[in-house]
Amino acid sequence: MYNKFLVDNIIKNALIEDMNYGDITTDTLINKNSRGRAIIVAKEEGVVAGVDVAKEVFRLIDETISFEALKEDGDTVKVGEKIAKIEGSANSLLKAERLALNFLQRMSGIATKARQYADAVEEFNVKVVDTRKTTPGLRILEKYAVRTGGCYNHRYNLSDAVLIKDNHIKAVGGVKEAVEKAKTDIPHTMKIEIEVENIQQLQEALDAGADIIMLDNMDIETMKKSVALTKKKALLEASGNMTLDRVKEVAASGVDIISVGELTHFIKSMDISMNIE
Amino acid sequence: MYNKFLVDNIIKNALIEDMNYGDITTDTLINKNSRGRAIIVAKEEGVVAGVDVAKEVFRLIDETISFEALKEDGDTVKVGEKIAKIEGSANSLLKAERLALNFLQRMSGIATKARQYADAVEEFNVKVVDTRKTTPGLRILEKYAVRTGGCYNHRYNLSDAVLIKDNHIKAVGGVKEAVEKAKTDIPHTMKIEIEVENIQQLQEALDAGADIIMLDNMDIETMKKSVALTKKKALLEASGNMTLDRVKEVAASGVDIISVGELTHFIKSMDISMNIE
Amino acid sequence: MYNKFLVDNIIKNALIEDMNYGDITTDTLINKNSRGRAIIVAKEEGVVAGVDVAKEVFRLIDETISFEALKEDGDTVKVGEKIAKIEGSANSLLKAERLALNFLQRMSGIATKARQYADAVEEFNVKVVDTRKTTPGLRILEKYAVRTGGCYNHRYNLSDAVLIKDNHIKAVGGVKEAVEKAKTDIPHTMKIEIEVENIQQLQEALDAGADIIMLDNMDIETMKKSVALTKKKALLEASGNMTLDRVKEVAASGVDIISVGELTHFIKSMDISMNIE
Amino acid sequence: MYNKFLVDNIIKNALIEDMNYGDITTDTLINKNSRGRAIIVAKEEGVVAGVDVAKEVFRLIDETISFEALKEDGDTVKVGEKIAKIEGSANSLLKAERLALNFLQRMSGIATKARQYADAVEEFNVKVVDTRKTTPGLRILEKYAVRTGGCYNHRYNLSDAVLIKDNHIKAVGGVKEAVEKAKTDIPHTMKIEIEVENIQQLQEALDAGADIIMLDNMDIETMKKSVALTKKKALLEASGNMTLDRVKEVAASGVDIISVGELTHFIKSMDISMNIE
Amino acid sequence: MYNKFLVDNIIKNALIEDMNYGDITTDTLINKNSRGRAIIVAKEEGVVAGVDVAKEVFRLIDETISFEALKEDGDTVKVGEKIAKIEGSANSLLKAERLALNFLQRMSGIATKARQYADAVEEFNVKVVDTRKTTPGLRILEKYAVRTGGCYNHRYNLSDAVLIKDNHIKAVGGVKEAVEKAKTDIPHTMKIEIEVENIQQLQEALDAGADIIMLDNMDIETMKKSVALTKKKALLEASGNMTLDRVKEVAASGVDIISVGELTHFIKSMDISMNIE
Amino acid sequence: MYNKFLVDNIIKNALIEDMNYGDITTDTLINKNSRGRAIIVAKEEGVVAGVDVAKEVFRLIDETISFEALKEDGDTVKVGEKIAKIEGSANSLLKAERLALNFLQRMSGIATKARQYADAVEEFNVKVVDTRKTTPGLRILEKYAVRTGGCYNHRYNLSDAVLIKDNHIKAVGGVKEAVEKAKTDIPHTMKIEIEVENIQQLQEALDAGADIIMLDNMDIETMKKSVALTKKKALLEASGNMTLDRVKEVAASGVDIISVGELTHFIKSMDISMNIE
Repeated sequence: MYNKFLVDNIIKNALIEDMNYGDITTDTLINKNSRGRAIIVAKEEGVVAGVDVAKEVFRLIDETISFEALKEDGDTVKVGEKIAKIEGSANSLLKAERLALNFLQRMSGIATKARQYADAVEEFNVKVVDTRKTTPGLRILEKYAVRTGGCYNHRYNLSDAVLIKDNHIKAVGGVKEAVEKAKTDIPHTMKIEIEVENIQQLQEALDAGADIIMLDNMDIETMKKSVALTKKKALLEASGNMTLDRVKEVAASGVDIISVGELTHFIKSMDISMNIE
Repeated sequence: MYNKFLVDNIIKNALIEDMNYGDITTDTLINKNSRGRAIIVAKEEGVVAGVDVAKEVFRLIDETISFEALKEDGDTVKVGEKIAKIEGSANSLLKAERLALNFLQRMSGIATKARQYADAVEEFNVKVVDTRKTTPGLRILEKYAVRTGGCYNHRYNLSDAVLIKDNHIKAVGGVKEAVEKAKTDIPHTMKIEIEVENIQQLQEALDAGADIIMLDNMDIETMKKSVALTKKKALLEASGNMTLDRVKEVAASGVDIISVGELTHFIKSMDISMNIE
Repeated sequence: MYNKFLVDNIIKNALIEDMNYGDITTDTLINKNSRGRAIIVAKEEGVVAGVDVAKEVFRLIDETISFEALKEDGDTVKVGEKIAKIEGSANSLLKAERLALNFLQRMSGIATKARQYADAVEEFNVKVVDTRKTTPGLRILEKYAVRTGGCYNHRYNLSDAVLIKDNHIKAVGGVKEAVEKAKTDIPHTMKIEIEVENIQQLQEALDAGADIIMLDNMDIETMKKSVALTKKKALLEASGNMTLDRVKEVAASGVDIISVGELTHFIKSMDISMNIE
Repeated sequence: MYNKFLVDNIIKNALIEDMNYGDITTDTLINKNSRGRAIIVAKEEGVVAGVDVAKEVFRLIDETISFEALKEDGDTVKVGEKIAKIEGSANSLLKAERLALNFLQRMSGIATKARQYADAVEEFNVKVVDTRKTTPGLRILEKYAVRTGGCYNHRYNLSDAVLIKDNHIKAVGGVKEAVEKAKTDIPHTMKIEIEVENIQQLQEALDAGADIIMLDNMDIETMKKSVALTKKKALLEASGNMTLDRVKEVAASGVDIISVGELTHFIKSMDISMNIE
Repeated sequence: MYNKFLVDNIIKNALIEDMNYGDITTDTLINKNSRGRAIIVAKEEGVVAGVDVAKEVFRLIDETISFEALKEDGDTVKVGEKIAKIEGSANSLLKAERLALNFLQRMSGIATKARQYADAVEEFNVKVVDTRKTTPGLRILEKYAVRTGGCYNHRYNLSDAVLIKDNHIKAVGGVKEAVEKAKTDIPHTMKIEIEVENIQQLQEALDAGADIIMLDNMDIETMKKSVALTKKKALLEASGNMTLDRVKEVAASGVDIISVGELTHFIKSMDISMNIE
Repeated sequence: MYNKFLVDNIIKNALIEDMNYGDITTDTLINKNSRGRAIIVAKEEGVVAGVDVAKEVFRLIDETISFEALKEDGDTVKVGEKIAKIEGSANSLLKAERLALNFLQRMSGIATKARQYADAVEEFNVKVVDTRKTTPGLRILEKYAVRTGGCYNHRYNLSDAVLIKDNHIKAVGGVKEAVEKAKTDIPHTMKIEIEVENIQQLQEALDAGADIIMLDNMDIETMKKSVALTKKKALLEASGNMTLDRVKEVAASGVDIISVGELTHFIKSMDISMNIE
């Protein structure tokens, strides 16, 4: 779930973007009172995400529309399967169609890819997580779609966890100093993650008591060494150019977390359409 | 170019999304007065778009940052080429990095794909255009990126051109009736586009005086017949499941316009990174 | 019709403007539970526009108010005719009264003037249209009122049609160059209008293939010549200091469109009042 | 003067309304770097208001534009007199032109009418004031224009003064009760105004200690009697269907205040244009 | 009462502040459909204010929640008394709890202190009023709470009454000049208050016809002299470092108004909690 | 530091709240060009917080004002010490005064109390932290003020850490189940805190692997037992009705964290004033 206040703001913004003064075609040609029925149908196989968002698009355009979800977020659908049944003013159906699909297709595209990653590593005790490489303005929905597909979220934003990168380390003077300074100042509810590039830095991070250590662009061998060295004293997160082809091998190295930018920065909308009767 | 008021609102929203209370890591570890320099570098070949947006991200975070663009929107870059040089507070550089890249990478990804389509059809007298299948809230930037890559824009939204689809036709009673009703009521500055599925509907649309006729999911042969029949009395737009593989053949059919949803609903961020010294 | 999201934002803004902390008089003197009935009545003859906007004002202030429209937008009313019947909390009626009337009176004033123009040219095959000389922030409602009165809309804003003025022509180097450059770059869904001041420019515009040609401040004779020369190859729009006295003569010249700034930059609110029982 | 935060919000809103995605004509045809000069010129005689608002429109569109005011708000201008000189990017000048004029023309129209009213009553010790019949969303600018023209403001909104109307009186049970209840509850910084329809109600209002008494739609004779009866113990405000023809006679009756709805609900934009060199 | 549009904006803002992406704990652990009941209970004695605001928090989070107010604003409650009974989705109850209490506790804290001041002066014909020393963004609710507790409001903001301070006087050249200039220019619906520091200034202010005179930080003897001198020709407002200990003595001096910054700049939330069954 | 976009929104909102149409007194009496100087002075001893916020208030009202900070956030000031020196338009100084002080006084009040708590426990290895009992809309500034005074922040909002309360435990079926379910689902960057009421629950929480355990309203003896039992395997947070009198004894028990609602729900503005020369 997600904060509906943020999501409603996103939808209203998008409605103003897509309609501006109004739908000139529909308002000219379709009587406000003419009734219609529509079916939202999957045109390729995938994992559905965004059904409630689509429903909210219709509700915001016209409160009298009935929207019956036939699938719920996380369901896998096959080609031709119906996702929702909608009924009400034909005028309103036509106005809402494109925007509802724009949300649903993108979110389902993300969920579908997330499912592929989740499936790829299911035999391992590892979580695939997203990154901050999300579409500006849509993070709340994209991170939700990632969860829907069976992966997990990394931190939401710059203010809810510490992630110390090499420039931070340089500025403070060392791994130890950075972790200690962070520990002293931040809320006790926050974890500290630090990015390391080699075994030596890993050892420093462990000594400093980091909660999570990001193994940045390491090869598989070094990851394995890191796992052996760490002995579960911190969470290990593999990061960098992760692909579906490679993720299983990385998972097998024994890391706890694999972060995958591609989940949200390579978005292929799922093919879904709406048929109006 | 684009309306900077809309774009600044998009950026500010995204900054609040990404920072919320603040960048806990950077504010804890990096002194506000420490200086830094950074280079934005292409890590794969592509067409750059969004340099001004990235610059505006830095400016909004910190007015004192100097941002020198080394490439401008529309330039092709090779692996390793520098796109921009940035200098100023290291604290501010770190805060702006991810968001600036999120815009730049997505927009460049779109421009790169647009360039591929533009190149594919360059020997023909045809325009490849986008659709309304854009990311909710980012249409202004995505349509700009499409132009930057060398393709063209379809209508921006539901209120700036008429596009009559089959449900509109059914509701009014026929192609002729729909076009005539639209002609009577809409601003004289607007064109009327209508979607047809076969030659018979095409003839009706021509007789009714439509400005643009969308050939929806037609095979190549029917497109060619349509071109022959139309004799330039209306613009013909080919639409439906267009891919890079197929677009040249479609262009060869003689249509005027090819609309490609993929330009904005299948977004692969271009690999670009920022190196801070 | 119009995009209700934009209109609701306009109304809410105006309610905050008019109420600020609250209606000190009504909240001090009128019990929240006291009931009242009110009639909205025309105090001069005219064309009603804005009934739904007025209704929305009441609904936003108090969802439990019943508002029965007795006239609908576009109806002509005589002195004393009832436009709407409202019932509910007397406290809410008093709070909504002025703002509901402010919208209704202005919009009806515009619709009434639009009707006069529409009537003046009804024997001719010509459309009277508005301009961008609208009240800042209220364009959507004013253009709607123009349509309600029987006139038509020009482009809505700077991004939905091209209108090339003399400064644009000068910058590019000529009529031909301007039209051609525009044709190449803009969406295929947009028309190109160009402003001309004499017959020679008109001929150039025709040769360049402009869709619409604005005859700027021409005398009637030149307009007639323009019509003869154009032979329907482009739409001709007469523009400049149009008044009710002169519009019929202009219409008789054979132009297709007459644009009238006065429709929205000379607003005389229609006299309408609300009587509370 | 006025709160610039509110006015900037109004302008930004209006810029988004007028430009939406951008000025397609200007961005297509005019190079961002081409320079231009423009003059804002009065095309009819009147009182100027809104010069700073126009300046702010240019500034918000392009900070580098130089805007030199040649007249200031409240100045009377004759046909052909220059109001401002503007210099900068020709692209920006063209984008700002219409909106700057829309503000300036409307505000100057209001100021000009206000000046006529102020002049009409100048020999009397009376203030002509506006009402809440302002354009939704623009009250702050319209009331400013009224002052600029030499008239005065009534209350700004429902929360900054008490104005007891007949429905309030009925609800409470009488003039005396209404005034007393208000006196007890409202801030001591507020005045109480009450609307009366005849001499008897006037007497009651005086007895109850109202600060201001509105003489609603009274004939001149009754106004004179009211003045005589009141003996300056309260301010008397004449109200109802005031016109320029009638206002002098009303002023002569000896009332203190005359409120004129027409100042803001009958807006004739002053003819002002911008010439770009 | 208060303008619900402003208050709803305050609540929505606060909900976004407190929830951001969502309530991770509740959304992870509590099923959306699980039902719960809750009681809001006073844990110390005081005057309740903000019950409707709390109710609106619950309504905005979940329209299906039933909220039954057992006390209304202004009621005194004892330890253990129930203020409201709430029933609905347990998930929603948990999300709304803290924010509803944050409003209710602060507002009740203010009302409770206001009641103490009102009680302290009840034998005198004097009003205790608040100041502009309110929490930024919450003035509408804090001033409402002050009234709820039995005190009164001073002006709401800088635009609804004139309050001339010593810097204003110096700038204009004297008390007389300041009052006269203000009288000439401001709306006739506004009162003029002026701050004086001694008897001589008081006399000037009286002569100039100020409506309200603020006795700034005067000792009791000077206040008494001021009262004697003024003879009810203006309202006298005592101001400066007022405390509960001192207010009675000040009231006894005969002033009309006592302004107390502490009412809103020293806020002790009342102890109120919510028990979920 | 804090996200300036959020803080600027807070300030602009507050400026509209406090000025509405404008500062009628200042705009009537003080020339825009008259110059003034002002000093912000402490009138009681305390810890300053909010100097940058006050500066931003002046900057937003008038960019040309010079504001020189003489103290910085976290400094202790004595009675009479100068905090800032301001120079510029007297008109602007008067408009900004109250709002700048409203922020500065509240934030300094919080920082001063935070310092008292920090000092009270300085001999112990414990952090005093705030809670979510902040003023709606001002959390970012209040939590900043808490840090400025030397205390620490608890989680910022419901989405950046898990805090399991008894209702959550009941809903899931037990401490163990709750912690495990949370661990599985939440981002790996988040910690899990759980509230316990007795030693048995504490043991369960430890067994389940909670990161932080909140000892809710425990007596000192039980706290000590908890510390002994926990052996640093989790952070222990003492919570419930904490006061300055009691906090040292709690700190002595050996807990790691003490959360104090009073830091932000009992706000006594520090006495600070601005003197204009």
